[in-house]
Amino acid sequence: MAGNTFGTLFRVTTFGESHGEALGVVIDGCPAGLALDLDFVQAELDRRRPGQSRITTQRRESDRARFLSGVHEGRTTGTPIAAILANEDQRPRDYAEIAQAFRPSHADYTYQAKYGHRDPRGGGRSSARETAARVLAGAVAKLLLRTQGIAVHAWVAQVGDVDYAGTPADPSATESNIVRCPDPAVAARMIAAIDAARKDGDTLGGVVAGVARGVPAGLGEPVFDKLHADLGRAMLSINAVKGFEYGSGFAGTRLRGSEHNDEFFSSDEGIRTRTNHSGGIQGGISNGMDIIFRVAFKPVATIMKPQATVDAEGRETTLTGRGRHDPCVVPRAVPIVEAMAALVLADHWLRDRVARLP
Amino acid sequence: MAGNTFGTLFRVTTFGESHGEALGVVIDGCPAGLALDLDFVQAELDRRRPGQSRITTQRRESDRARFLSGVHEGRTTGTPIAAILANEDQRPRDYAEIAQAFRPSHADYTYQAKYGHRDPRGGGRSSARETAARVLAGAVAKLLLRTQGIAVHAWVAQVGDVDYAGTPADPSATESNIVRCPDPAVAARMIAAIDAARKDGDTLGGVVAGVARGVPAGLGEPVFDKLHADLGRAMLSINAVKGFEYGSGFAGTRLRGSEHNDEFFSSDEGIRTRTNHSGGIQGGISNGMDIIFRVAFKPVATIMKPQATVDAEGRETTLTGRGRHDPCVVPRAVPIVEAMAALVLADHWLRDRVARLP
Amino acid sequence: MAGNTFGTLFRVTTFGESHGEALGVVIDGCPAGLALDLDFVQAELDRRRPGQSRITTQRRESDRARFLSGVHEGRTTGTPIAAILANEDQRPRDYAEIAQAFRPSHADYTYQAKYGHRDPRGGGRSSARETAARVLAGAVAKLLLRTQGIAVHAWVAQVGDVDYAGTPADPSATESNIVRCPDPAVAARMIAAIDAARKDGDTLGGVVAGVARGVPAGLGEPVFDKLHADLGRAMLSINAVKGFEYGSGFAGTRLRGSEHNDEFFSSDEGIRTRTNHSGGIQGGISNGMDIIFRVAFKPVATIMKPQATVDAEGRETTLTGRGRHDPCVVPRAVPIVEAMAALVLADHWLRDRVARLP
Amino acid sequence: MAGNTFGTLFRVTTFGESHGEALGVVIDGCPAGLALDLDFVQAELDRRRPGQSRITTQRRESDRARFLSGVHEGRTTGTPIAAILANEDQRPRDYAEIAQAFRPSHADYTYQAKYGHRDPRGGGRSSARETAARVLAGAVAKLLLRTQGIAVHAWVAQVGDVDYAGTPADPSATESNIVRCPDPAVAARMIAAIDAARKDGDTLGGVVAGVARGVPAGLGEPVFDKLHADLGRAMLSINAVKGFEYGSGFAGTRLRGSEHNDEFFSSDEGIRTRTNHSGGIQGGISNGMDIIFRVAFKPVATIMKPQATVDAEGRETTLTGRGRHDPCVVPRAVPIVEAMAALVLADHWLRDRVARLP
Repeated sequence: MAGNTFGTLFRVTTFGESHGEALGVVIDGCPAGLALDLDFVQAELDRRRPGQSRITTQRRESDRARFLSGVHEGRTTGTPIAAILANEDQRPRDYAEIAQAFRPSHADYTYQAKYGHRDPRGGGRSSARETAARVLAGAVAKLLLRTQGIAVHAWVAQVGDVDYAGTPADPSATESNIVRCPDPAVAARMIAAIDAARKDGDTLGGVVAGVARGVPAGLGEPVFDKLHADLGRAMLSINAVKGFEYGSGFAGTRLRGSEHNDEFFSSDEGIRTRTNHSGGIQGGISNGMDIIFRVAFKPVATIMKPQATVDAEGRETTLTGRGRHDPCVVPRAVPIVEAMAALVLADHWLRDRVARLP
Repeated sequence: MAGNTFGTLFRVTTFGESHGEALGVVIDGCPAGLALDLDFVQAELDRRRPGQSRITTQRRESDRARFLSGVHEGRTTGTPIAAILANEDQRPRDYAEIAQAFRPSHADYTYQAKYGHRDPRGGGRSSARETAARVLAGAVAKLLLRTQGIAVHAWVAQVGDVDYAGTPADPSATESNIVRCPDPAVAARMIAAIDAARKDGDTLGGVVAGVARGVPAGLGEPVFDKLHADLGRAMLSINAVKGFEYGSGFAGTRLRGSEHNDEFFSSDEGIRTRTNHSGGIQGGISNGMDIIFRVAFKPVATIMKPQATVDAEGRETTLTGRGRHDPCVVPRAVPIVEAMAALVLADHWLRDRVARLP
Repeated sequence: MAGNTFGTLFRVTTFGESHGEALGVVIDGCPAGLALDLDFVQAELDRRRPGQSRITTQRRESDRARFLSGVHEGRTTGTPIAAILANEDQRPRDYAEIAQAFRPSHADYTYQAKYGHRDPRGGGRSSARETAARVLAGAVAKLLLRTQGIAVHAWVAQVGDVDYAGTPADPSATESNIVRCPDPAVAARMIAAIDAARKDGDTLGGVVAGVARGVPAGLGEPVFDKLHADLGRAMLSINAVKGFEYGSGFAGTRLRGSEHNDEFFSSDEGIRTRTNHSGGIQGGISNGMDIIFRVAFKPVATIMKPQATVDAEGRETTLTGRGRHDPCVVPRAVPIVEAMAALVLADHWLRDRVARLP
Repeated sequence: MAGNTFGTLFRVTTFGESHGEALGVVIDGCPAGLALDLDFVQAELDRRRPGQSRITTQRRESDRARFLSGVHEGRTTGTPIAAILANEDQRPRDYAEIAQAFRPSHADYTYQAKYGHRDPRGGGRSSARETAARVLAGAVAKLLLRTQGIAVHAWVAQVGDVDYAGTPADPSATESNIVRCPDPAVAARMIAAIDAARKDGDTLGGVVAGVARGVPAGLGEPVFDKLHADLGRAMLSINAVKGFEYGSGFAGTRLRGSEHNDEFFSSDEGIRTRTNHSGGIQGGISNGMDIIFRVAFKPVATIMKPQATVDAEGRETTLTGRGRHDPCVVPRAVPIVEAMAALVLADHWLRDRVARLP
């Protein structure tokens, strides 16, 4: 119950600190017989990897997944899949200062308050480095979903004040630039905004949007484990996330029912809705339409400017960010958002298989 | 895993359909020795009860809680607390039509797709009536939190296009009017907007905001079960919710890190932050500041206007809303939001008690 | 985590005290579409009911199940199935004495130690009356298993020193006498032993044996949730149980490997073993053979003789059993053992459906 | 739900195959602040290690624990503790044969039936090698229990037909000989029996008994998660276990209530019972007396004699055991039994901390 496991049937447990020996993940409940494309898993990790472009942290980690169990002759065996990622570029000395003082809007203070002591190196377990293990597990979930024709795709929809409102048809446009915005012109402006913030020693926030396509009607549980509730929890569990909305979201609260309702019609593909304010989910259960959602990320807390704070004894002091950090987290958050969505969908796909008599 | 249980240590299971015999709830994990103030529980139910004002549904339910177990001589015994609420005002005939056709933006179609058959009376399990059981359980959670000086308070922050941006100091202002907006002038405009929509046979959405006060630093688990992730899931599991944000939320994504960071300082009450963009939670763990959040509700799906839809055989048809429904759900959602927040906090308060050696 | 829920996918939560208002059960995760034969459920409850014969307690309870939710037009809907059983024959005055002193080998002292206070009426939650809710849930599980050709059958294999070593082919012989031993001659001796003990104001223990037939190969999870581990836990959770063994059990520890191993052969029904020391389970997973097990019940703790004990203040005192109690619990334990076995098998049947790709 | 996690608050997940790259374990929920004595952990692993004496398998594994996370400056941090054990002495060629044919009374057939394919090398996940990860986790649990004055001690109580009926006062006698029976004379006979069986190419079973001392009254949950039910499940989840009993166990079923009941009395240490047929647990909750239990192990399935069996196509064939195997598993099972008992007690100690208001 310490909260390092995600999912009910497709269960993922992550472990490891930012500057400890290794990160890792155990996936328990992946069905036997899944062909595990290791190149795909590595490619997903590479999308999240630090140092991939000039707008991300320059920490150098190869993030090569080393599988320890659960796979035999290229297929999952039904037993736990464990994999680890070594921490290669540790620089604990960067963190001597934060062992003493609490970085504003970081988790230093709350960890200290909760546990009495903590691993201060790189934020320890609160570091976004933990999400590498999620991306690894999410890649396995994506492979499972692929067998059912389900695909998840996320992109950057906002950086600071630069917005992109579209929904790209496929992921290639998203991956064509370093900020992962499908529109090249908007992407250029986003990159310029990030460059400007970094030059100021400052940081930006933004929004990642996502879509899941090919989800059949029926996924999700009706009351507490509504599909969008689990998606929301998944996204909110990512570092720096401040909000989640799906379908019409917060904007939909200003519509009238007659404007917002999605009328049903019959198509060759079955029952569909003419609009999709529901975001592909009604009553917590997928309705066969695209599942669409948006995730808000705050600006990165580590800035290269002096800030007032206190130390462990409560004495006031000043702290200036050091180390290698992203000036804006959303470009690297795209594969993390996809991974978490894939974990939720894989779990609910399995759960749905036991919802009714065969 | 069918999703009718909420929480890990303070575990709540709800059951019952809108027009079945009774709703109910089982609370497992409430610590022994808690004085159970039954009048308070009933008062909370009364805040959610249908028919409480002219802007809510006119269904007549007394919603009297009948406790079956877990309480002895006014105190919890540590064994499961079960309580039921009879369904008194059933009018199944109101639902003959929807047994045949799928109401737009309701859960009729998705339940049918998932389960193969369903209880169509009043939406069955997908009815918001299920939330009465949550309010009952939430009242017990509030009593538990009260022993620790923790209180939860929610209010209506938006109805349609009428906004209220404040944070009231205490709940009495909220409860002083039927729309549950702390500002009487804004409340009057909200009520007028609801009246106008109802006159049109239409409905409105809105936003409920909430605050938890008195939460000590240290509640929440660091990775997947972050305090705000569990709060978000809790809120997103309420019928008609489309989004959740805490602290600076979506708006915070447009700030720079230097604007958004909450600097620490020492006060007589311990370490505090000068601003509270963090919304009282850092790294998923409470930091001792007020926990603030907002919940988006879509407009009610049942409108008194004809809408195109399809029936179970996929034939196109038209449906007009019948029965007794709320023209806007947010006034009655206020106690539900509070209940779900209380359940999350009670659970995490218990979880925190085992996080470190005594 | 307070332990009133059993199962992972087929989840059963029971509530209610012996002399409270009602007992009840919520089943979450029963697949939709199961025809719920209410007469069968009631017949199962009747097998456990007090007062059914002269060798059981004379407490009069009709134990009529009242279903509150989860069933529509005779079929399960996939939503939680809740049912309650009223407590009709409460005699709290029988328990005035035990509110003060701890009955030897009962749970009075341990509940007091754990919770600080307790409901002393009839043992409260520790009463075997709680098992009525299990039998109710088990009957639903049996109906689910029946759709797969799986049946569970238990019988009395020992009362005091009277043993029955056979394995009956079908349940009718078991149900032909009040002690539920398939051999009428042995049954008569068992009944005589119970009568003799009761006449002495004393009680007996015994053994219930069980078999599950028609279980396909593949049920059970390999490591911690081995099929027999879950069966064992299920049985050990029944009041008064002191031991569990399956297949060759404790006696098998005295065999050599060459005597104990079950050789495989091919039959028309597939791969089978010539002997069944494995008890139908190998490596925690069913192998298609009959699953056989035995459950040890201690003699009933309530005896009609004075016993030394202490009161809540630790003062030494004497207590003589009162109230209406079974002189030997095993005849009424038979349907409870079956119910728990059915719950385990139903749960593992569901779990197995997600173990591999379809 | 695939069953590789044990515990509710002190949660242990194991992974790894017998001849894969590594075994491992993740402990989630160990309280922060526990001093982690790595030498003690290693000493526990050494007690289970293969090749430790002439009566165990000669496979050579150093079983050095490598901790990856969750510990900082010698203390647990509250984050997941992960550790791995490399597989060093892999001889996959020993297993070419069993990739084709099913070893009698092994898990080859059932894994194949469940998953469709399997890792045949050394039994893959069904190998008792998985228990090394349990011993590692159990050592951490023992350290946690030690802070509360709770200790677990197991020993060999039977090998084949050689019995030892005592309860040793402390573990040193147990560890003084290679068979781990506290009585040297009985130990010698047990060793002789094992030698004789091995000389015949045959194997023996036996019984491991255990005691937990210093357990305070109040541990255990009253209904499904009774302390002995969780202990039983823990033991039954160990490879080769066929039965579990606690307190008077199966033998107690032949006593009368007047003989079996444990009378209470007051002592300087609080309320105690004169006898301990209850085995330290009443109503599923510890009563402060020693917790005593016994675990039945079948004879090892791998024998060096030809046995009839079938291959994956169902063709009849003959198989003779190869590789390096224990002729009797109970000496090495002693630390495994202790580890599983420690995991259960640590979990229930944590659970009890949230059972009542502080």
